[in-house]
Amino acid sequence: MVQVFIKDIPKLQSLDEEVIIKGWLFNKRSSGKIHFLQVRDGTGFIQVIVEKGNVKDNVFQSCNELTLESSIIIEGKAKKDDRAPSGFEMDLTDLKVIQLAHEYPIQKKEHGIEFLLDNRHLWLRSPKQWAIQRIRNTIINSIFEYLNSQGFIKIDSPILTPTACEGTTTLFPVPYIPSWKDEGKGDAIKVFVPNSKTESNDKPFAFLTQSGQLYLEAAIFAHRRVFDFGPTFRAEKSKTRRHLTEFWMMDAEAAFVEHRENMKIQEELTVAIVKNVLDKNTKELEMLKRNIKSLENSAQGKYTIITHKEAIKITNKLGSKVSERDDFGAEDETILPKEFDRPIFIEKYPKEVKAFYMKEDANDKSRVLNDDMLAPEGYGEIIGGSQREDDYDKLLKRIKEEKLPVKDFEWYLDLRKYGSVPHSGFGIGLERYVTWICGLKHIRTTIPFPRMINRLRP
Amino acid sequence: MVQVFIKDIPKLQSLDEEVIIKGWLFNKRSSGKIHFLQVRDGTGFIQVIVEKGNVKDNVFQSCNELTLESSIIIEGKAKKDDRAPSGFEMDLTDLKVIQLAHEYPIQKKEHGIEFLLDNRHLWLRSPKQWAIQRIRNTIINSIFEYLNSQGFIKIDSPILTPTACEGTTTLFPVPYIPSWKDEGKGDAIKVFVPNSKTESNDKPFAFLTQSGQLYLEAAIFAHRRVFDFGPTFRAEKSKTRRHLTEFWMMDAEAAFVEHRENMKIQEELTVAIVKNVLDKNTKELEMLKRNIKSLENSAQGKYTIITHKEAIKITNKLGSKVSERDDFGAEDETILPKEFDRPIFIEKYPKEVKAFYMKEDANDKSRVLNDDMLAPEGYGEIIGGSQREDDYDKLLKRIKEEKLPVKDFEWYLDLRKYGSVPHSGFGIGLERYVTWICGLKHIRTTIPFPRMINRLRP
Repeated sequence: MVQVFIKDIPKLQSLDEEVIIKGWLFNKRSSGKIHFLQVRDGTGFIQVIVEKGNVKDNVFQSCNELTLESSIIIEGKAKKDDRAPSGFEMDLTDLKVIQLAHEYPIQKKEHGIEFLLDNRHLWLRSPKQWAIQRIRNTIINSIFEYLNSQGFIKIDSPILTPTACEGTTTLFPVPYIPSWKDEGKGDAIKVFVPNSKTESNDKPFAFLTQSGQLYLEAAIFAHRRVFDFGPTFRAEKSKTRRHLTEFWMMDAEAAFVEHRENMKIQEELTVAIVKNVLDKNTKELEMLKRNIKSLENSAQGKYTIITHKEAIKITNKLGSKVSERDDFGAEDETILPKEFDRPIFIEKYPKEVKAFYMKEDANDKSRVLNDDMLAPEGYGEIIGGSQREDDYDKLLKRIKEEKLPVKDFEWYLDLRKYGSVPHSGFGIGLERYVTWICGLKHIRTTIPFPRMINRLRP
Repeated sequence: MVQVFIKDIPKLQSLDEEVIIKGWLFNKRSSGKIHFLQVRDGTGFIQVIVEKGNVKDNVFQSCNELTLESSIIIEGKAKKDDRAPSGFEMDLTDLKVIQLAHEYPIQKKEHGIEFLLDNRHLWLRSPKQWAIQRIRNTIINSIFEYLNSQGFIKIDSPILTPTACEGTTTLFPVPYIPSWKDEGKGDAIKVFVPNSKTESNDKPFAFLTQSGQLYLEAAIFAHRRVFDFGPTFRAEKSKTRRHLTEFWMMDAEAAFVEHRENMKIQEELTVAIVKNVLDKNTKELEMLKRNIKSLENSAQGKYTIITHKEAIKITNKLGSKVSERDDFGAEDETILPKEFDRPIFIEKYPKEVKAFYMKEDANDKSRVLNDDMLAPEGYGEIIGGSQREDDYDKLLKRIKEEKLPVKDFEWYLDLRKYGSVPHSGFGIGLERYVTWICGLKHIRTTIPFPRMINRLRP
């Protein structure tokens, strides 16, 4: 008898043979003579029918006693059933219980979000949570596949960094290297923290990275096209539905790529991701009740490009009070894309609202060659990119204007001294991307174990 | 005229057409009438011949002035040359200089390692460093490919964790959430660190992860087979050639997989990785002067499995003083595999030298169902795995024996209460793996930007 994954049942050569499935009971309906077991095995879901008389008495009896989330090994024949979500059901012939689960804390009833997050290690098993992580996995793989096909190689940028590349108030400091006062009991740890100026200087701090971009820019001179994909951190003190303290970013950088080609890569990547999700996660999108119309449009490319200047005008007409040279706020980012049926680009923001490393626009030196890709349906920014300033003097001037410590950026400036080239890059915040694709209201379920200001467990 | 990557020149339909290459000059030999330019474009290396008379005078002249690492656009015809490492050379017809590089700090002469690490942002361009990162990239992709083909999905385990799962003295604490005293100047940051007990309690610490394993174990109950691949941290105070403070780990966990199948997956994965590197990085292995005999053997599988008990005996005969119930030291890990021409497994270590979560061996309850894969040629441990303890009572007993805080492990114990199943997993330290494949003496060049006790820059 062959062991199968539920996902592979539609691919079985013959349905006449009995198969073995190992998995968990996630729901059950019973009458006196029949049990309907909802079984999941991590790869999919199937309904299993247990009819009295068709199985041994002790097997039927043990189905009576089966508790939710018990681990089981079932044997039976799969059969087509057009009413079943997977297209298949199973007639049970035998069942073994591996472990009879204790009373499962997550029941059908409504639970509060804090309870569910406290039980995130179990909540992950719920169908919607399962579907979100499968889609997240498809997005991750699509990013690797597309970037590999375009000659990008993975260069892991460091997490522990000596300097801040963006805002300083959201940095996580890490004593580097810490000293420990261990009580010697193994269960009580005290961290030695410097409490005088002298000590503080002796024990410098590292900071958890907020972006690997600057490091990737160094790597393009070795490998031409590179990307990283790792965790980044913001000590975000506000609780919002769009913020995590720990989240995954993909940064890509390419030598000899200028502003327009940079946007083309971003569009192609998004098209590739959305196509893959529509292709591989049909079932998961259904489980999330995702309206896929806008994803289908997004898979067709041809994203409108609007300059910041035009975008401000349109947004003002739609009721926003954003001013001519403002950055877009989170609210503006949701208003504007509602007018479009797929992602849009906004390009060429005022220099003063954007980062120092963005290249100035030769046609309007008060603006930079950047782009933000905004998702449709009000999901806000999903990609941000720009051509990078490749002129040593202009870059140095910008670093000074921003009052950044020049010494810390000397290595970065070096890249403009030894074979500078036009180059561009962009970043994707994975969790915001997953939020959009899955059509979620809140970012917190897009990552397996979310970290927020008041949430560090489990 | 078509723009090409150097790596794609062998695939050109016709060599009669002129092509454009954008890249950097990495070396130059000149006589009065001819320049040999060594050009790299991030994808490969090619020699470009500039003959006086064949190009305009100003082009020949600008080749005279070209400095190392200058960025250039060259036009010419590729031609076969069996003496060239890539099999091709190029006859130049035109050249444009994008930026004439300042005097490049890294010259042909010998530099000290600290100088090179200080200039890591430039050193990455050197051929050997280039080759190492290409091989690292192949290893990363091979891991994704193999695990995807076996039904593993990526589940990103958290970096900021509330508890320590391994030794406490090498943990990096992170104030969670930090408060900041900003001088308001933008270039002076002071970290607010708690200096009284009250404050210390108010501002708890998170710890940087040392392994995502426990979190992945939770995820197998949702997804059956999962892996993570991210940075892990050890506040390693000793300077050795095998330690970094920040390094990348891949952890894989699978439900319904027992000890022997776990080892089979590890062997198949290693075979897949080594085959891919031999296939895709022939040139890079040559650049590193890697003797590939042992890699070729490793690609054939059939790794010997030795019990810890036997391994101790053999190692003692080879001169080690390791005792019967000791863990293997770094030195022992290099002695034993020298007797073998490919990786070996050592299995079933004494319980007392291994982690609490490993499943005890039913045939010898003083030992656990674990395995270490040791690389040949003295490179030491490259994979460590085990079947995990799935019995609630035994696991709780082990946690108490190790004096770990039971409360912090309640969520982990839950996994044995709600549908426990036999399961196994393993971890790969990426940088040690790269060290072996590339045949390096020191781990520090296997990661783009190494972090060590005294090294946080650039």
